[in-house]
Amino acid sequence: MKKLLVVYAVMLCLFFLYVYDYSRGDKTGSTEASKRPAAGSLSEKYVMVTFQSGIEYWKSGLKGFEDAAQLFNVSVEYRGAAHYDVHEQTTVLEQVIAKKPAGIALSAIDPKALNPVIDKAHEQGIPLVLFDSDAPLSKASAYVGTNNMKAGAEAARRMAEFLDGKGETAIITQPRQYNHQERTKGFEQTIKQKYPNMKVAAVLDGKGDELTSKKEAAKILEKNPSIKGIFTTEANGANGVARAVKAAGLEREVCIIGFDKDKKTLDGIKSGSISATMGQDTWQMGYWSLHMLFFSNHHLKQERPLPAAIDTGITIITKENVAAYYAND
Amino acid sequence: MKKLLVVYAVMLCLFFLYVYDYSRGDKTGSTEASKRPAAGSLSEKYVMVTFQSGIEYWKSGLKGFEDAAQLFNVSVEYRGAAHYDVHEQTTVLEQVIAKKPAGIALSAIDPKALNPVIDKAHEQGIPLVLFDSDAPLSKASAYVGTNNMKAGAEAARRMAEFLDGKGETAIITQPRQYNHQERTKGFEQTIKQKYPNMKVAAVLDGKGDELTSKKEAAKILEKNPSIKGIFTTEANGANGVARAVKAAGLEREVCIIGFDKDKKTLDGIKSGSISATMGQDTWQMGYWSLHMLFFSNHHLKQERPLPAAIDTGITIITKENVAAYYAND
Repeated sequence: MKKLLVVYAVMLCLFFLYVYDYSRGDKTGSTEASKRPAAGSLSEKYVMVTFQSGIEYWKSGLKGFEDAAQLFNVSVEYRGAAHYDVHEQTTVLEQVIAKKPAGIALSAIDPKALNPVIDKAHEQGIPLVLFDSDAPLSKASAYVGTNNMKAGAEAARRMAEFLDGKGETAIITQPRQYNHQERTKGFEQTIKQKYPNMKVAAVLDGKGDELTSKKEAAKILEKNPSIKGIFTTEANGANGVARAVKAAGLEREVCIIGFDKDKKTLDGIKSGSISATMGQDTWQMGYWSLHMLFFSNHHLKQERPLPAAIDTGITIITKENVAAYYAND
Repeated sequence: MKKLLVVYAVMLCLFFLYVYDYSRGDKTGSTEASKRPAAGSLSEKYVMVTFQSGIEYWKSGLKGFEDAAQLFNVSVEYRGAAHYDVHEQTTVLEQVIAKKPAGIALSAIDPKALNPVIDKAHEQGIPLVLFDSDAPLSKASAYVGTNNMKAGAEAARRMAEFLDGKGETAIITQPRQYNHQERTKGFEQTIKQKYPNMKVAAVLDGKGDELTSKKEAAKILEKNPSIKGIFTTEANGANGVARAVKAAGLEREVCIIGFDKDKKTLDGIKSGSISATMGQDTWQMGYWSLHMLFFSNHHLKQERPLPAAIDTGITIITKENVAAYYAND
């Protein structure tokens, strides 16, 4: 009987504990619900679509995409055209849309050719943001990336500083891609408007490729010995140009400004063969792309459009600050 | 004894229920934690700071700020200079910083004068984003609002459409505020570059006030009868200009393009006295300001900067689509 009473007492304690916990849990439960606005499920899949999908350049953007996905408890998939090929990217995008993902982040290889497929995603209610390279006339929800006009203008200002405001320059770019068109335009306009003793003597096609960039740089340096500076708008260009400049025996006589933070470019800045590079925050592009797609599905829904654009900013990397950019992303 | 056994049995049941619930709670607990990235606490306070703080214009932005705060379970406070007075706004901002809030969203009355105080917030580790009107040389984390150069350029294109690409125009603006400077510049540059038969004949100061805008419009219309269009860059301007145009007996002879979606402006568009207005998405400005401040504190922390800017986009509102904008925000 005594034993039973002890058990009784213990049970009574546990009962009150239970009641207490239950009521507390209830309260917490409702607070949790209001506190849990950003919870997705792992069956919710967001797809990143690129081109030249194997290059190092996309890694940091994909990391940002994945980091945001982890935060929101959703899944991601990485797809892309293996080559620099608009038809291949169109096919990949068609395949992705057919699977009805929760959202798509696309870097468009061409500012117009993909519009019908982008618009198809829109019509099917699949949120799609463009990142890095825009297709401004498509029905995509938003653009996330560098303000490329601004970045080109800033590159021109730096070039003018390096060249003391005088001399001929050349641009090596990818003339079919919108972001590269904008960088080129920003550079050209700034030189024209602000530096009367400077000139953009040539705009060349580096095809997003180190070797082509090297060849184009070699040709223009031979043809026009007045070239004192080369701005290359694309990640693989700077090292190609640096090799051409070295081969021509013009090291430290031709100023090179590159784009992006590839290891070879950073190495060139460290060694002095490249003067500067325009560092994009590609992690942010991926992070905020997923972020906007997620909020478009969960909180803004059909009622609110996404913002037109997120400018992820630019950092100018020179010998002074290059150390901080190794392994930063 | 029988009674005791019943009680015993009931207690036993409750005990198992308790254990079951406890273990379930535990499991949910950990899932919740991973699923609950965006949970703040109500003691976390975000402050919106404006000027002319009583005007209708800020309401929708504040609603966006509040909506995001509710989503993330944090608190907001609304502060501002009652008048259009840079010293008053500086004092208010100083007071807000002294209370060490979790974050500040500021619309800067002046693009330079507030920089020392903005930078103080930065040095104290208080995230601060500028919304609507930027202070681009400050150490603020980001800008959230309309791309005002683009908006001014678009207003110029619409004006050219209304005037068949010919005639003189005037701008009524707030010349000290950065967003209005940008709108003015975008309008002027576009007219100059694209419409050789058009001209911006005068840029006037409406002081953000309907009556001053009316007076300035009346003066310029009397002085220069060639004026065929007036672009007013500020919310209170369009109705003032419409009243001046009516008083001068020039209704439907002078095209008015306004800015923002105040009721009086929408009424003017409905009745035909105002041709169009550039609709900003002020709700988005508030929403994404809080959004970025919150993520800056919770997930990006010191390790990652915020994006440089969020362009909240623009919609052109004319007689055709004005109905949709009543009570939309």
